[in-house]
Parts: sequence; structure tokens; C-alpha cells
Amino acid sequence: MKKYMHFDRAEFVARLAAVKGEMEKRGIEVLLISEPPNQNYLTGYDAYSFYTPQMAIVALSYPEPVFITRAMDRISAVMSTYLSDDNIRGFPDQYVHSTTLSAYDYVAEVVKDLGGENSTIGVEMGGYYYSARAHADLVKALPNASFVDADLLINWVRLVKSPAELGLMRQAGKIADAMIQRAVETAAPGVRECDLAGAVYHQQMSGTPEFGGTYGCSTLMLCIGDRALAPHAPWTDDPLPTSTTINIEVHGNRHRYQVNLSRTIVIGKPSAEYQKFADIGSECLNAGLDAVRPGQTCSGVELAYSKALAKHGMEKDARIGYSIGLGYPPAVGERTASLRKEDLTVLQPGMCFHMMAAIWLEDKSIATTQSFAVSAGGYEALTSTPRVLFVK
Amino acid sequence: MKKYMHFDRAEFVARLAAVKGEMEKRGIEVLLISEPPNQNYLTGYDAYSFYTPQMAIVALSYPEPVFITRAMDRISAVMSTYLSDDNIRGFPDQYVHSTTLSAYDYVAEVVKDLGGENSTIGVEMGGYYYSARAHADLVKALPNASFVDADLLINWVRLVKSPAELGLMRQAGKIADAMIQRAVETAAPGVRECDLAGAVYHQQMSGTPEFGGTYGCSTLMLCIGDRALAPHAPWTDDPLPTSTTINIEVHGNRHRYQVNLSRTIVIGKPSAEYQKFADIGSECLNAGLDAVRPGQTCSGVELAYSKALAKHGMEKDARIGYSIGLGYPPAVGERTASLRKEDLTVLQPGMCFHMMAAIWLEDKSIATTQSFAVSAGGYEALTSTPRVLFVK
Repeated sequence: MKKYMHFDRAEFVARLAAVKGEMEKRGIEVLLISEPPNQNYLTGYDAYSFYTPQMAIVALSYPEPVFITRAMDRISAVMSTYLSDDNIRGFPDQYVHSTTLSAYDYVAEVVKDLGGENSTIGVEMGGYYYSARAHADLVKALPNASFVDADLLINWVRLVKSPAELGLMRQAGKIADAMIQRAVETAAPGVRECDLAGAVYHQQMSGTPEFGGTYGCSTLMLCIGDRALAPHAPWTDDPLPTSTTINIEVHGNRHRYQVNLSRTIVIGKPSAEYQKFADIGSECLNAGLDAVRPGQTCSGVELAYSKALAKHGMEKDARIGYSIGLGYPPAVGERTASLRKEDLTVLQPGMCFHMMAAIWLEDKSIATTQSFAVSAGGYEALTSTPRVLFVK
Repeated sequence: MKKYMHFDRAEFVARLAAVKGEMEKRGIEVLLISEPPNQNYLTGYDAYSFYTPQMAIVALSYPEPVFITRAMDRISAVMSTYLSDDNIRGFPDQYVHSTTLSAYDYVAEVVKDLGGENSTIGVEMGGYYYSARAHADLVKALPNASFVDADLLINWVRLVKSPAELGLMRQAGKIADAMIQRAVETAAPGVRECDLAGAVYHQQMSGTPEFGGTYGCSTLMLCIGDRALAPHAPWTDDPLPTSTTINIEVHGNRHRYQVNLSRTIVIGKPSAEYQKFADIGSECLNAGLDAVRPGQTCSGVELAYSKALAKHGMEKDARIGYSIGLGYPPAVGERTASLRKEDLTVLQPGMCFHMMAAIWLEDKSIATTQSFAVSAGGYEALTSTPRVLFVK
């Protein structure tokens, strides 16, 4: 069967070794991995099947991860992972949305097969795909095991990207650039908001002539007019007026590696006051970026940004960025390092962030952002769209 | 501030009364609602903000739901819900992806404000957005409360759609039809798979000239060639060959109400054997549909389908459909009624299903499906695309 893999087997082996090393440090013998990006990271698995129970299991005593999914999706695991056939298990469809059967009982049986019945088991307590019910069912089915919280264990391992991963992030960035360009070209009075959204989505999947894109980890954000004051509002069917503000956040995605990019597009002539506000947004974003270098902390980057903002008498009470990389819905954020005052994570080459230094005030907003990789000399911008207000 | 609401206040009041009635029956005094479609159903809230903690709270003793979200998204609640300003609460950004603070402590404080400190509290244990950590934090913060599983309580209330909801489902169906039409028009040898995906996404958001669409609850499914044997595989950048099979599942979505629609498109001339297989797929789908009527059970519909399939010496070991309606990522499935042998749910007018009667064999597959609403006389098809194999 044809394989669809985007990394060498050696890279998966290295990732597994890093995760096992961290498990050993924490005394975890069996790690149950419910987060789709973490499953992909360790095995290569890629299919939109995570809305029913799915689990990757790493046991210290077992050479490969074992991957469990719905029987109909087993073939996707054969196609997209490096795992041997024995280590791919499919549970029968009767377990799906059943009121009497739990797929986590099936998972528990595999844990027993791997000798983990009496072990210390790590679970991703705060993950999107580890429900309170999943945990309760597993604890009940494995009464002699000891459960510990291993949330974000793999996320922290993922924080520093390999050269191959950075290659995909650069491609994702080029797709994001093409999406903003398409938005600027398409936005015009009379164009319905939904048609603008459609054009940008078209570009997201088409990508570039050299390589295509795929679905993002969240929806396109397209917040227009009064909704430009809301960061995550839906678009409407309304035609664009002759004068309005468009905040757009696009997600270039290449083989699940995602680069986020926001800009503000003004239709009509911005007021001098608004143009000045937009310039301040760019100035402060650049001040934050200039502070990025290996050895700097997340907190230090935020400080450089907020100092620049304070000069203009403003402050931002939300974090100004978050780490990005491999992701699935509902969000690309790795839930590890945030660019915020309280975060003392030390930057290293290969870490990637979306510096989401947008400013929302009561009556206006500006959404100029930059995704970057920390590089030896400072930062590498992952997109090349100018950090300015766009005017149409 | 302009309001973006798609239902009358009276409809929300009736929904709340139905939910409170069910709470009373079960002895639940306070219901914590973590599932985004259930939050929308009860309050109207619509924004892509559910990737950080979010909760709607219904207390029997309190007239309106209380909605809690991240402070920056509070404005979306003001815009999209009928709730009074007091009943919309925003938690500070410091709670987001924090290693020391839990937004569920903030939720617990609101529960106390509502007098729920010593009450019986229902939580959605099996929901996508109620993690093991969320539950552990709430139980710790409310030690005198008694927690019970209220998963799917609202989902079951949502199962029968109102006339206004059915109106949105019909619009979503028209968008799904337009998407399949666009796919059939676009698919041709030499077209890259990603460009085909892009065209279909364009149509999804553009919708129709009368009304636009929005993002779906999951990705477009576009499984081509060898991946037509996998139900949820990603597309590639490869150009379509002169002869291949395309399984496509589109999601027309109107104000979060979603209609799913799958078809198989063959490029080149299908073999007589494959055409016969496709005809069997349509015949069995129609046999299932003909069994739909109020008073029939989900099991009875499945039986009619599987009998028709058995005549051709085949069987399908997965359920043949699931209820659909209001949804958010990662999936539209309401997790309630499934068209399967074991499900004795009695059909009522207003229930909506995606009859996903696709057949995957080891060497071929056919994906002809139909979404429908149960009507007084049988069923109302929510899409008008012919239930046949498309050949290009």
C-alpha cells in the first residue's frame, strides 16, 4: 500500500526517544496520548477521525507506539504511519456514540496486552480530546494502575522544531501570504463578506503553484465593521460598504503545520487618527520582534512590546503570542509557551510563535501580527507580508 | 450594539423551559454546559472562542442562563445572545493556557454566586469540551456540591428541530447541493486535488446568491484513488489522473446548522462491475429512506437498509447514519440517535439525520448518502442532488 509520510522514519524514532526520556524522568511507564497533534507527532497518523475515541500508547518496555482508532480508519493508519501492522488496532463501530459500550474499555485491554495493568500511566488531563468520561472509564477499567497527569509532556517536546518541521512551517507561511494577498485583492465595496471568505478559503487549499494547502486548526477569522471589535465573531452575508475595517486572521497549513497571520484591511480612506493607531501597532510589534533571540525569555519579549505600547499610553491585558506548529482543530496553539509577563520560558532556535500583538480598544482595533521561528541570530519571519495597515 | 441573532427570544425561552424541565426530572439544580452547540442552542452565542474554557450555566432558581467566556470574547456574547448584560461574564486572560490558574475556579465562583455551592450539579462528562482536568478542578473548587453526569441532556432536547431550525437546515442543504455541483464541474484530469478542495471550499462559504455559508463542523472529506478506501484521509497535491474514483463529503452550513452530503465521482469510464456496485449503493440507500416515517425506529430504518444490502450478499458493519443539526468542530453528529440495529429511538417529525449509507470494501467503495428531516408523511430530503454515481 502506498505510504503518505512527511518525515523519515529516523525522525519518528528520535521523537519517540525524546518522549520516552521524559517519561523515565517522571516515572511514567505507559503514556496514553489522546491529543491528535501528539499522535501525529509520534506516529505520523493523519486523518480527520479524532472526533471518535483514538489513542496512541507508548510503553517504556515496548519498542513502537501502538495506535488505536475506529476500525474504518485503521487503513489511514496503515497509509500514514511508520508503525508495523500489529501495532495498529481498530475498535468495532459498535463503540461509536454508544450509550452502553466505551471505547476506553478497548483501550484498557490494549494497555493490559502491553503489560501495563499495574503500571504508572500518564494521561493528558487537560487535552481537548480527553473527556472527563474517558478518564473515568479508564480509571475504572484499570483499577490497579496509578494515573498521573502527563498533559503537555509531548507538547513541550514538540516546542523546538526540527529542520524538516521548519521546512513545512516555511511552506505554511507562504500559503498564509498568498491568502492575505487574495483577501486584499478581493475586498471591495459590494463584495459579500461570505464571498470574501470563500476566496480566502480557496487560496488556503490551493496554496501555491508549487505545493497545496489543507484545512486549518480553526476557522478563518474575518471580523468586519462593528465585529472588528470582536476577535472571533463570524462573518455575515452583508456586502462590504464603501468604508469599513476588516480584521482577518488566516491559517496557512501544510501537512498539519500551521502559520497564522493577521492583518487589518481598511476599505475607504482611514482617518489620520486611525492611521496613527495602526502605525503604533506595527511599531510595537516590531519592538517585540527585535527582542527575540536565543536566551531571551517569553516574558522579555512581552516586556519589549509593552514598553513600546506604554510610550503611547496604552496597555494590552492579553498575552501577545503563543507557540505554534503541528495542529488539529480546534486550535493550533501548543498550550505551552506564551509571550506574556509571567512566562519565563527561555527561547531556543527552532521554537515558533505567532506574535498576536493585536490591539482591541472599545472603539477601534488593529490586527497586525507576525509568526516567526527563533533563529541563531534572532528570529526568522515565517511570512513576508508587510507589517502595515492595508488600504483598499 | 447591533445584535446578530437568528431566532426569536421566544424560541430561546422555550428551549430553556424544556431543558429546565429535564433538569427537574433528573434532580439537577445547576447545569454546567460546556458543549459549544448546546451553549449556542440555549443562548444564541456564536464565536470561534471555545478552544479556551467557556461555560453556560442554567440554575433552576435563576431566570436566565449565565454565560462565561474569555474577557476578549465577552463582546461576541453581547452581540449574539439574548442575555442581559449581568449574565455575561468574562474571565481575565491570565487564565488562558496558564500552568497555575484554572478558569474552572472562575466558573466555580459564578456557581456560588448563583447559590449552587451545595447543589446537585450536572456536567457533560462525555463532551468534547469537558476535559478530565476541567472536571477535577470543578470538583475540587465545589467540594460540597454533588456532581452527576448530564451528558447529552441538551443534545436529546435538540433532537427534534423547530420550524425555524428546519428553515436553516434547508438553506444548509442548498449550500451542500451547490458544493457537490461545483465539485463535479471542477473535477477533471490534471486538476490538483488541493485545487478541487479549494473550489469546493469557495462554494461552501459563498453558498448561494440568496444566502452565504460558513465553516463546517469538520473538514471537507476528499478521498481520491487509493484513499477512496479510507473514509477520512487528507487530500494531496497530486493532479487527478485520467481515471480515478473521488469520494467527497461536503458540509453545507448556515448559521451553524449543517447538512452533510456525500457522493462518488468517477473520472473516466467506470467498469460495468463498478457501476453495478454503485447502483446497489443507491438502491439500498433508497430502501432505507423508504422506511423512514414517524413511529418507525432507528433500528427499523437500518433493518430496511441491511435487508436490501443482504440481497446482494453484502453487509455493513458500521452504523448507517446519525442525527445532525447545530454544530461546531470537531463534528456535527449530535451523539444521540444513530441509525443502527441497537438503537430503538422512535422517529418524530423534525428529527434530522445524515443517512451515511456508504459502502467500503477492501477494493472499492461507494459514498452516496442522503440527509433528511423526518416529516409527517415520511421524510423530507434536505438536498436535491440525485442519488447516483457521477461520471466525468
